[in-house]
Amino acid sequence: MKGNSTKAEIITIGDELLFGHVVDTNAAYISETITAAGARVVWRTTVGDNVDLIIEAMARAMQRCELVVTTGGLGPTNDDLTKKAICKYFKRPLVFHDEILEKIEERFKARGIAMPAINQNQALQPQGAEFIENEIGSAVGIAIEEGGHLFVSLPGIPDEMKMMTSGWIADRVRTLAGSLLTIHRKIKVVGLFESALFEKIADLVENRGGTQPEDKISIAFLPSLRGIEIRLTVTTRNESDGRNQIAQLEKKIADRVGAYIFGYDDDTLPAAVGRLLRQSGATLSVAESCTGGLLGKLITDTPGSSEFFVGGVIAYSNELKNRLLGVPREIISSYGAVSEQCAQAMAYGVRRVTGATIGLSITGIAGPDGGTPEKPVGLIYIGLSNAEKTIVAENRYGAGRARNRERSVTEALNMIRKNLLGID
Amino acid sequence: MKGNSTKAEIITIGDELLFGHVVDTNAAYISETITAAGARVVWRTTVGDNVDLIIEAMARAMQRCELVVTTGGLGPTNDDLTKKAICKYFKRPLVFHDEILEKIEERFKARGIAMPAINQNQALQPQGAEFIENEIGSAVGIAIEEGGHLFVSLPGIPDEMKMMTSGWIADRVRTLAGSLLTIHRKIKVVGLFESALFEKIADLVENRGGTQPEDKISIAFLPSLRGIEIRLTVTTRNESDGRNQIAQLEKKIADRVGAYIFGYDDDTLPAAVGRLLRQSGATLSVAESCTGGLLGKLITDTPGSSEFFVGGVIAYSNELKNRLLGVPREIISSYGAVSEQCAQAMAYGVRRVTGATIGLSITGIAGPDGGTPEKPVGLIYIGLSNAEKTIVAENRYGAGRARNRERSVTEALNMIRKNLLGID
Repeated sequence: MKGNSTKAEIITIGDELLFGHVVDTNAAYISETITAAGARVVWRTTVGDNVDLIIEAMARAMQRCELVVTTGGLGPTNDDLTKKAICKYFKRPLVFHDEILEKIEERFKARGIAMPAINQNQALQPQGAEFIENEIGSAVGIAIEEGGHLFVSLPGIPDEMKMMTSGWIADRVRTLAGSLLTIHRKIKVVGLFESALFEKIADLVENRGGTQPEDKISIAFLPSLRGIEIRLTVTTRNESDGRNQIAQLEKKIADRVGAYIFGYDDDTLPAAVGRLLRQSGATLSVAESCTGGLLGKLITDTPGSSEFFVGGVIAYSNELKNRLLGVPREIISSYGAVSEQCAQAMAYGVRRVTGATIGLSITGIAGPDGGTPEKPVGLIYIGLSNAEKTIVAENRYGAGRARNRERSVTEALNMIRKNLLGID
Repeated sequence: MKGNSTKAEIITIGDELLFGHVVDTNAAYISETITAAGARVVWRTTVGDNVDLIIEAMARAMQRCELVVTTGGLGPTNDDLTKKAICKYFKRPLVFHDEILEKIEERFKARGIAMPAINQNQALQPQGAEFIENEIGSAVGIAIEEGGHLFVSLPGIPDEMKMMTSGWIADRVRTLAGSLLTIHRKIKVVGLFESALFEKIADLVENRGGTQPEDKISIAFLPSLRGIEIRLTVTTRNESDGRNQIAQLEKKIADRVGAYIFGYDDDTLPAAVGRLLRQSGATLSVAESCTGGLLGKLITDTPGSSEFFVGGVIAYSNELKNRLLGVPREIISSYGAVSEQCAQAMAYGVRRVTGATIGLSITGIAGPDGGTPEKPVGLIYIGLSNAEKTIVAENRYGAGRARNRERSVTEALNMIRKNLLGID
């Protein structure tokens, strides 16, 4: 398989996918992870809980591709048919593997729970397969090599699938992958509309396909409520050439877009803010009304956030805004809880009661109810208080409770980012 | 095609899908919409921007299914690869359709914008096809009937794809499907392992395919960190018969699973807890350490949560546990912030400082760092305090920061649910 990038197919299995009850995020994760490791995904298939169709999909994939990864259908219950299909397709009997049962028993024991008998099924596995340990669940991954093709079957539970994909499979793909590589670079932007971003770099985008080496790079835009991702992709036989070309174009883009760029690749805005806080020795506290804890949740997604994040107050009721943050009752009665004055008092208050060097506040009308002509749904105030000053930004979004909450926290995180960079 | 449910395949087209840069939400939307209209999706395929592979996918799908829906590759800038593939596969030339160009020109005129010349391409379409109007974009949908099979190609832009799917395609599927309908019911369970749940209803699950009407119902399990979904599905010619059969089986399952069931269909655990709080006239406050706001965020996802949720404290640092919740410093120094005693003091403290009738607390080691032999990563204490008592549950999960946080809030929500139902 050396010398060319490994052709791969992904098969996702489950009626819930064909019914559309579940969005197939597993397929995207496996695609991205094995592409990064050097495979070339050329085909993806989804079939339901039906042994014959699973076998048909497996057979076609094994013809087409050198690497076939399936996910789903390995659990202990009856709708988990993938193991049956594997045995039938590869003509291998199920045999009992003591070492697998021991590991499952150990994990239940460590949690002080009796192992339900049905988990014994998980030790029945196809003969002669290689098993991928499941550190967090009971279904092992199954790998079979045959005729120069590698077949791997993973459980469908996302965390279990992810550990096996980013570990075992990615390692194997890196070994298999020849010299042809697809290199991606994501540039992450916040605080700009997509059209405004596009205008800044339109000539760079339209200049693809020219004679310069970096003209072979493709550019795509991925806008979301958490910012915009600019995606650069190049396929090359020479990794350092490819990285070089990407670096050239990346530099041109960075020169135009400047401080709107908060990070690269898998960076997140909360993680970028965390780094800035750590670097500046600042500590952060939050006072959340309409976002109800979302801002704190995002900041603490990052391991080690206790170094700079002390916590704060979810001041959902007006009463708590006064009681825990010291927002004067007169501010709420005169201006309302959704007001510049209240956001200011919340940011100042949370900084004071927590002792953090920075206080960040969010108060607004997320919707769908609670809007008035003067204060419509989507009106959100965001406040920032530090030792020098307290500032407030007014935002008028629109309908959509979840959207409004997401946009509010993105804006709040960008506000503190700009403050720490000295560009507000 | 009358008399049987229409077998359908969906083909999604685009390199960005195979790279894993974009999650294939279009496939889920089309699946759900045409299933609801009466089709039976049996296969899904994803291929990249490559004419030969698009044709191969189309050919296989047209053999397998009576309805084939593709999405992607119809825009004016991306080389029109799908249109090329259609012409080649169906052996039809591209012809210029004045009526299509007129409609596009009209829409640009209505917006006062000059039509970019590139849009003329959109009037070049396969001969003898039927076209699906695009009310918000320039790429029309293309429908071709051949040999009793219906082929439909949609643009990949989600809003355009959705309008055509929920309108034109769903109408056509309802006509094709005759009277055959697929009915779903989701039963939502929390507080049980999948294997333990399965043991409770194994005989009901294994008894499929028998002679009783409800034996035709298929049962599937969908576990996640937020509980387990039991999915009942039946395909029937008579809607009320189908609903009746589902109701029979649902009742049997409910008798076995009892209070582990928190809701049905699109219900969420936080929403179910919200209903119970509202019904009992209770108010809730939270004290979150390792979850950093996630519990509050989930509770306030539900509109109208201000009726029962007052807010709380994100007590991430030890200092805030004392300062804002009144956790005695001696508890933290003697037992640690991750201890039964601290969880108890946090739950009691947040109830006291907020004036809510119930206080819920979470403190633990989410990981990846901070674990010790006695207090490993995954050790989480959850406390509940009301006027009568304060109780604490100790949980030992495992590795995985995000997993541990998700499991903690599920457990906390289930704790208050059981308390309100009087079954703790």
